[in-house]
Amino acid sequence: MAIDQSKLTASDAPRRRGRPGYDLEAVLRVAVDLFNERGYDGASMDDLSKRLGIAKSAIYHHVAGKEELLRMALDRALDGWSEAAEHARALGAPAIERLEMLVRGTVAVLEAQLPYVTLLLRIRGNTPVERAAIARRRSFDRLVADLVEEAERDGDVRADIDPRTTARLLFGMVNSIVEWYRPGRRPAGEGSLADAVCAVAFDGLRVRK
Amino acid sequence: MAIDQSKLTASDAPRRRGRPGYDLEAVLRVAVDLFNERGYDGASMDDLSKRLGIAKSAIYHHVAGKEELLRMALDRALDGWSEAAEHARALGAPAIERLEMLVRGTVAVLEAQLPYVTLLLRIRGNTPVERAAIARRRSFDRLVADLVEEAERDGDVRADIDPRTTARLLFGMVNSIVEWYRPGRRPAGEGSLADAVCAVAFDGLRVRK
Repeated sequence: MAIDQSKLTASDAPRRRGRPGYDLEAVLRVAVDLFNERGYDGASMDDLSKRLGIAKSAIYHHVAGKEELLRMALDRALDGWSEAAEHARALGAPAIERLEMLVRGTVAVLEAQLPYVTLLLRIRGNTPVERAAIARRRSFDRLVADLVEEAERDGDVRADIDPRTTARLLFGMVNSIVEWYRPGRRPAGEGSLADAVCAVAFDGLRVRK
Repeated sequence: MAIDQSKLTASDAPRRRGRPGYDLEAVLRVAVDLFNERGYDGASMDDLSKRLGIAKSAIYHHVAGKEELLRMALDRALDGWSEAAEHARALGAPAIERLEMLVRGTVAVLEAQLPYVTLLLRIRGNTPVERAAIARRRSFDRLVADLVEEAERDGDVRADIDPRTTARLLFGMVNSIVEWYRPGRRPAGEGSLADAVCAVAFDGLRVRK
């Protein structure tokens, strides 16, 4: 799942004045790791400056402050999800197929943007930026629940479970991947992570005899 | 899933000298909520004393300090898991049935001990107590992976996915429930949460036609 980098670059281009090797992208990547390790509240711009080995003023060439770094990081994960939702919507197929495509899309975002998705899943809503991200996340959750409900009406998804519960369990499984997945550490010969998730979630782990 | 309260009471009885209404159990419950809201590192004994409305010295009647509260809270969740594992082990049934019983047991622990399980799933390993809990958690994870592997050998669990990945996805789904489950808020007429988890995880959400 590719993220539209051009958007980021365009809007932030005027601030790209840091020393070589520390463009906005590098600052953001280090900031996200720091937020994930210490929690957003527990990480300061001083910590970030120490970790980057540059003065705080050099960081302020790129961003207005900590909250802007948080917003950019959360948007990266959320933009990935939105793009996956857009692809699923455009598919013109039964709801269950769009649902499977959405699962595959979010797994791909998770694999490509692991630290950003991890951060998104850990925020608690203590700041306006976090609350805005949670609102975007909720509208994604509603979209998933609507898709599950539509697939239930089509007779393609089991109707003995409330669609919201099904949606939560399904994406709970997807999101739990951030707890253990590390890029490049999949054993050789293993199928894709998206295949494994879809196999378990859609067809179950039990072998039918 | 009942937790053995007698064990807790026995070992901590000598310290139960606080004023009425603030026995060890009440202090622990408030401490866990505080840890979950602010993170263990971000919560101080001062915060706990303020929230309880009693002096820190009154808290120290019950416990040696913050780390002992953390240990007791994490043990409560881990003891629940151990008990669920023990029940599954004692079942004398095929591995897939023991696995399902283990899933049902951990969902029951989660429902009965939600704040304690939430705390366990959020710790990062910054203190010896956290690292000891993570070690106990890892041995639980190994037990699950062994059960999945045994069920695969029996031909009862799909063999196209690495058993560790299957185990992680299955318990990732179970553990994700802490993110949204609130006791007493299940819609009337809904089946049990454990039934929903087992239906999706073992048989999949797709209707076979």
